[in-house]
Amino acid sequence: VNGGPVTTIDLNSDVGESFGRWQLGDDEAVLGIVTSANVACGFHAGDATTLRRTCEVAAVQGVVVGAQVGYNDLAGFGRRFVDMEPTELADDVIYQIGALEALARAAGTRVRYVKPHGALYNAIVHHEEQARAVVAAVRAYDADLPVLGLPGSVFLAEAERAGLTTVREAFADRAYTPGATRVSAERMVRLVTDGTIEAVDGSAVRVEADSLCVHGDSPGAVAMAARVREALREAGVDLQAFGGPLP
Amino acid sequence: VNGGPVTTIDLNSDVGESFGRWQLGDDEAVLGIVTSANVACGFHAGDATTLRRTCEVAAVQGVVVGAQVGYNDLAGFGRRFVDMEPTELADDVIYQIGALEALARAAGTRVRYVKPHGALYNAIVHHEEQARAVVAAVRAYDADLPVLGLPGSVFLAEAERAGLTTVREAFADRAYTPGATRVSAERMVRLVTDGTIEAVDGSAVRVEADSLCVHGDSPGAVAMAARVREALREAGVDLQAFGGPLP
Amino acid sequence: VNGGPVTTIDLNSDVGESFGRWQLGDDEAVLGIVTSANVACGFHAGDATTLRRTCEVAAVQGVVVGAQVGYNDLAGFGRRFVDMEPTELADDVIYQIGALEALARAAGTRVRYVKPHGALYNAIVHHEEQARAVVAAVRAYDADLPVLGLPGSVFLAEAERAGLTTVREAFADRAYTPGATRVSAERMVRLVTDGTIEAVDGSAVRVEADSLCVHGDSPGAVAMAARVREALREAGVDLQAFGGPLP
Amino acid sequence: VNGGPVTTIDLNSDVGESFGRWQLGDDEAVLGIVTSANVACGFHAGDATTLRRTCEVAAVQGVVVGAQVGYNDLAGFGRRFVDMEPTELADDVIYQIGALEALARAAGTRVRYVKPHGALYNAIVHHEEQARAVVAAVRAYDADLPVLGLPGSVFLAEAERAGLTTVREAFADRAYTPGATRVSAERMVRLVTDGTIEAVDGSAVRVEADSLCVHGDSPGAVAMAARVREALREAGVDLQAFGGPLP
Repeated sequence: VNGGPVTTIDLNSDVGESFGRWQLGDDEAVLGIVTSANVACGFHAGDATTLRRTCEVAAVQGVVVGAQVGYNDLAGFGRRFVDMEPTELADDVIYQIGALEALARAAGTRVRYVKPHGALYNAIVHHEEQARAVVAAVRAYDADLPVLGLPGSVFLAEAERAGLTTVREAFADRAYTPGATRVSAERMVRLVTDGTIEAVDGSAVRVEADSLCVHGDSPGAVAMAARVREALREAGVDLQAFGGPLP
Repeated sequence: VNGGPVTTIDLNSDVGESFGRWQLGDDEAVLGIVTSANVACGFHAGDATTLRRTCEVAAVQGVVVGAQVGYNDLAGFGRRFVDMEPTELADDVIYQIGALEALARAAGTRVRYVKPHGALYNAIVHHEEQARAVVAAVRAYDADLPVLGLPGSVFLAEAERAGLTTVREAFADRAYTPGATRVSAERMVRLVTDGTIEAVDGSAVRVEADSLCVHGDSPGAVAMAARVREALREAGVDLQAFGGPLP
Repeated sequence: VNGGPVTTIDLNSDVGESFGRWQLGDDEAVLGIVTSANVACGFHAGDATTLRRTCEVAAVQGVVVGAQVGYNDLAGFGRRFVDMEPTELADDVIYQIGALEALARAAGTRVRYVKPHGALYNAIVHHEEQARAVVAAVRAYDADLPVLGLPGSVFLAEAERAGLTTVREAFADRAYTPGATRVSAERMVRLVTDGTIEAVDGSAVRVEADSLCVHGDSPGAVAMAARVREALREAGVDLQAFGGPLP
Repeated sequence: VNGGPVTTIDLNSDVGESFGRWQLGDDEAVLGIVTSANVACGFHAGDATTLRRTCEVAAVQGVVVGAQVGYNDLAGFGRRFVDMEPTELADDVIYQIGALEALARAAGTRVRYVKPHGALYNAIVHHEEQARAVVAAVRAYDADLPVLGLPGSVFLAEAERAGLTTVREAFADRAYTPGATRVSAERMVRLVTDGTIEAVDGSAVRVEADSLCVHGDSPGAVAMAARVREALREAGVDLQAFGGPLP
């Protein structure tokens, strides 16, 4: 998977984050927009029935399913760093991928990549032991499974060293500089077609991304994701899962 | 799989039921005795690291691994009936099998059967909706996966109707009649070689079993399991997993 | 506490049912309508911070706080019957009341009644052992704490026998007869002022209630609750917590 | 509460750490040895029935009950640092104290101090925000409740600043220096009677302690605790809860 200027790009978003009585996000709408779905695995969010149904909709829509693995912390929604043993983290990651895979297969699809969630995602930008644990878990599960992460992170560096396919992502709805400026759809187009993004001071920052992350946990976020998709299409960018079309 | 008088029998036991700081049973000892291991899946017991290690020992010992699925109730150890929707139960079962399968594969083995645990096991002796939910889950996961259960149960009847391979079990350390008389090792030998068991009133009761369940959650239980194994061997019974030797 | 025609009535509703990242209901709106708040206790819903904040708003609004105790089942939102030992249920109930009481006091108020939630509420309409367990728990905690429940239930009968103050409730937004007819605000007024309610066949059914339960888990439910409140006020009914005004 | 050479000392130990099917430690034996019992509160260990029974035994034995509050992490037994918001931590602490208090009162006693557990205990030796959160929680619950902690910790410093009574503890069964040398019963006597402890290099280190922590989670630990108790008594030290005898 290469970065830089491209004519095709992947759009990914978190889904399957409802839990029992609690609904979160409009998964149906999001799955009509993105090409890759980061489906929760029950540790930070997502009961089994939610996961299966989300995978069913993804299968029908032709959206690729990925396992969004996280810390075992429902109350914190996986957003609190947990200083756990690498071995335990690795085993928790394998457990989560396998659990989602079983539901994905029952739904007529399968898990095609792994993306860490929340505090785990952030921790392994720098945390070497936990980064290696996640890499070891994916390798132990299926060494052909790509991993999604932040460009420049320890996680992606360790994954490459271990021979995993890495997918670099940029965020469509977060500013890349201090100051709460949200990145516009136009900037996403430029990111994809030029491989650069306009920083808040007007300069062009080089960003290599194979996938754009959009959010869908509020009506505003869904609308923003739809705008990004439309702007990319109008600019002639082909929206496609990073691994190519589904078989 | 047939019942009645046989010259080979399977011995199964629950393992992998430790959780975090809490140890339960002597899994190493048990895995040196049985031919099939009902490994917990994290819902009633078993953290991911416990499950992986248990599968590793089973793999080394040549013991077949089965998924012991249960209600999502750690505090109750899966021993309290939960009146849940069949759809949710089915999805919880698929989730559990997949989670254990992933850890089993990482440990060099795989899940080769499914056995419900505790209150779920007891409920689906009679509870049709939950029995069908478990059957539907196994079929959705892998229709070639055998299920272990109580002879005469709604669960095994539904499993047969659905085309699943069924394995009938008898209990080595529980009396078959009122009065707390424990079944002796000798009675287990007769059960296996004659297909009958002596009831407390002295009469012979026909019991068809493909597998004997022994317990290992106390030193006394482990000793009892070892005695059953020895008595069977001395009687010329071949101890072998119900599906035959591992590939 | 007496039933029959009255000129004052209590309005109660479930609140505090958000959990971590997941919001449920518009507690601020509901606490502007009702006189008694059934605050979750963390077992079926409600993290500690949600509970404290809900109690703070209740305290500011002058709304009485009750402990809504339930089964320990987040995934099922307390809506699945759990066949647990009465002793364990009683201890779980004491645990929940105490936990909420601590947060209520930190918020400047206190727990003034107990109302079972969901499947527990429904179970103890008939289930004698669990009904007695809840009664025993409330007595052990504070024998002066009233309990809210269904008129005619085993729970209220056992509570009375044990010397607890009982509060009978009617449901403002559920039909009292087959056929999904929702009870109108006008029928609630008649229920309160006449002690009868019009069944769907037009006949008058006698209902003795000390409190009306309204729901607030959707915008429609909040609007309905507001309508009931207005209709009662226009009919000259005084809205007041069943135990009288707060000290 | 003062440190230095004393003729009375408190012995504290963790109890109530069983959970459902899983037993941990010999609480009955431990409660026959110590003067203060750090009872778990359900977040890192301890179901409600375990907590109530533990409090009942403590009440019978005249042992003072304290609330051992921890992170909400059963799988990690509260031994993994969780980077949570101070507000959420404070509310979790209040929740736990209240829950245990209710069960303690049902058991005929009450919560008389608070001791953080495991990773939380260790974190607030240095972590200012979490230390202040625990202090704020105890103050909000009951400003008269003493807190147990490590001498020199940020936690005790913050507690003092907030006007809480602080109790400093030393560990009877952990070495005070690198090298796995365990502290002997004799050294504990010297610690109590001289206010110093012999380091592994032979030098005398000043340690001010109001309470000695002993462990009881293995037969060896219980025997060690009993030896410490005996050695202290033989040296003429009076074993007494730090707050004096129970009323």
